[in-house]
Amino acid sequence: MALLFKSNSDSAARWEKELRAHIPDLDFRVWPDYGDPADIDFALVWGMPAGEFHKFPNLRCIASLGAGVDHIFRDPDLPEGVAITRLVDPWMAQAMSEYVLLQVLRFHRQGDIYARQQAEKKWDTLPFPDTAKRRVGILGLGSLGEDAAKKIAALGFPTAGWSRTPKQIAGVECHSGQDGLEPFLKRTDILCCLLPLTPQTENIIDAKLLATLPEGAFIVNSARGKHVVDEDLIAALDSGHIAGAALDVFREEPLPSSHPYWTHPKVLVTPHAAALTNPRTGAKQVADNILRTRAGQPPAYVVDRSAGY
Amino acid sequence: MALLFKSNSDSAARWEKELRAHIPDLDFRVWPDYGDPADIDFALVWGMPAGEFHKFPNLRCIASLGAGVDHIFRDPDLPEGVAITRLVDPWMAQAMSEYVLLQVLRFHRQGDIYARQQAEKKWDTLPFPDTAKRRVGILGLGSLGEDAAKKIAALGFPTAGWSRTPKQIAGVECHSGQDGLEPFLKRTDILCCLLPLTPQTENIIDAKLLATLPEGAFIVNSARGKHVVDEDLIAALDSGHIAGAALDVFREEPLPSSHPYWTHPKVLVTPHAAALTNPRTGAKQVADNILRTRAGQPPAYVVDRSAGY
Repeated sequence: MALLFKSNSDSAARWEKELRAHIPDLDFRVWPDYGDPADIDFALVWGMPAGEFHKFPNLRCIASLGAGVDHIFRDPDLPEGVAITRLVDPWMAQAMSEYVLLQVLRFHRQGDIYARQQAEKKWDTLPFPDTAKRRVGILGLGSLGEDAAKKIAALGFPTAGWSRTPKQIAGVECHSGQDGLEPFLKRTDILCCLLPLTPQTENIIDAKLLATLPEGAFIVNSARGKHVVDEDLIAALDSGHIAGAALDVFREEPLPSSHPYWTHPKVLVTPHAAALTNPRTGAKQVADNILRTRAGQPPAYVVDRSAGY
Repeated sequence: MALLFKSNSDSAARWEKELRAHIPDLDFRVWPDYGDPADIDFALVWGMPAGEFHKFPNLRCIASLGAGVDHIFRDPDLPEGVAITRLVDPWMAQAMSEYVLLQVLRFHRQGDIYARQQAEKKWDTLPFPDTAKRRVGILGLGSLGEDAAKKIAALGFPTAGWSRTPKQIAGVECHSGQDGLEPFLKRTDILCCLLPLTPQTENIIDAKLLATLPEGAFIVNSARGKHVVDEDLIAALDSGHIAGAALDVFREEPLPSSHPYWTHPKVLVTPHAAALTNPRTGAKQVADNILRTRAGQPPAYVVDRSAGY
C-alpha cells in the first residue's frame, strides 16, 4: 500500500515529512515515479491529468490538497467506488478569513479612494462610513464561508450568508436556495464569494447578479475565477454600479498580462494568494483518512459526487 | 447656565440636536457668539484658542470633543478648578480598531507589495505569512488601545501592549513603564501607536525606538503626528530597517504637499480619517456630564492634569 502525491504547487518533501510524523512507515511516492500502479491505494493530489486515476486498480481514496475539489471533477472519467475528500485545514480557514476581512475593511474604509488621493497629494477626509449600515454578504457557507462570516459579524457589520442548503450560524442572517439568492443580494453592500466551483455555481457572478446588488456594491472573489463572468463585472465597474472588486482568482492563472483587470482602476489583483494549504496543519486530517481507508472505514470530509463538492 | 461649543471640524448643529435629545432646554451657544461669558458653565471644544477659557468666570467643565485632550493642554493658561474630560465614545473605539486592524492585516498580508506587483503586472505569489508568528504591539492601552488589542488578538496574532501604568487584558501580553518598553519593542513586528499625546510621549517614535524594533517591522500611527520624529522614521524606512508605515496623523495637518510622506513608496497616508467623534453615540456621555456638573457632582472621564491625559 502506497500514497501517490501529485501537485505543481505544493511541496512533496514537506507533505512527506508531516505525514510521516503521523505514519512513520508511510510509503510516499511522487507522480510520475510511482512504481507499480497496483501499490497505490491513496492519492493526495492537486491538478492530476484527466484519465490518470484509472491507472490505479487498488485506489480507495482521492484526497484534494485544497478545500476545492473542482480540479478533481474536471476529470470526466473518474473511477467509480473511490472516495473523494477535500482538505479542511483550520490554518487555511484562518488565512482565507484574513484575506476576506482585509478586503472588506479596505472597501469599507475607502482604502481604494484614499490610495488614489495620496497619489494626487490630496488631503480630503471623506464622509465617515458607518459599520452598522455596511451590509456584508458571503456567498457560500462551507467551512471557509462560515469562519469568514463569523469574524466579519464580530466586528459589527450586519452579515448575511447564502448557501445551497439551509444553514444556521449565530449572528449571521442565513439565506439559502435559488429563492433565497435575490433577497440576499438586495441587502448586500460587499459581496464575498467563497463558493465551491460546480456546474451550478460557474458564472454565478454575472450581469444579472451584479444588477441585483445595490448601487455602489463591492465584490471580493477568492474562490475560483470561473465564478465570475469577467466581461459582466468589467461592464458593471465601468458603469459605476459596482464600485470596486478585489480578485484573487482568475479563469486563467497566471492572469495574462493583456487582461484588463491588471490596469483597471477599480480592481485589486492578487496572484491566488488568499489562502493556501499548510502541510503542518493539514497533515493530521490526511493521515487520519489514510488510516481509516486502510482499516476499511469511510474517510472523513468525503464530497458528494452529485453536488460536486 | 449655558454650554459653549467650539470646533472647526465637528458639526455644531448635529451636537446641538443630539444633546437636546437628552436635555431639551439646553442653552447651546457657539463660539465666538456666546453672549455673556458669565452664563457659560460647560465648554464642549476642539481647538479652543489659548487663553480663551479664562474669559468664563463660571466655567466648571471643559469637555474634549475627542478622545485626546492634548489640544486643551496646549493652552498654558488653563483656569484652575475646572474639570477637563475626554470623550469615551464606543463608536470611536470601533472606528479606530477598524483602521488599526485594516493596516495590520494589510502589512501582514503583504498588501503593499502586491499593490506594487499589480502596477508591474507581475504575478508572483510571495512566501505565505504565518499569523501565529506575526507579533503585533499596541503602544497605549487606554479605551482605544484595549479595544484594538483585543480584536487583533482574537484573529490569532500574538498581541502585546505597552502602557505607562500596569494593565491586565485577557489574551494580551501587557508591558508597562519605562523598563517595560524595550522588551515590548523587541518582540513587536507591527507597532501600532494609540498613545495620548503628552510631554512624555511626544517624539516617542524616534531613531532609538525604531532601532529597537526587529528588522522589517511596520509602523501604524493613528494617535498624533507629534508622536513620530519624521526624519527618524524616513531614515529607518530608507535603510530598510522599517518595512512600511501607515500614517493617519501628522505634525502639520493638512500634510503639506512638499512633505516626503506623500510620495514615499513605503508610506500610506490617510487624511486624519482613522476615527472621528460621532454626536449620535457621544452625546449621551456629554449630556450626563452636563447634568452631573450642574448637580454639583464630579463629571465622568476626568483627565489627570499632571499626567496630561
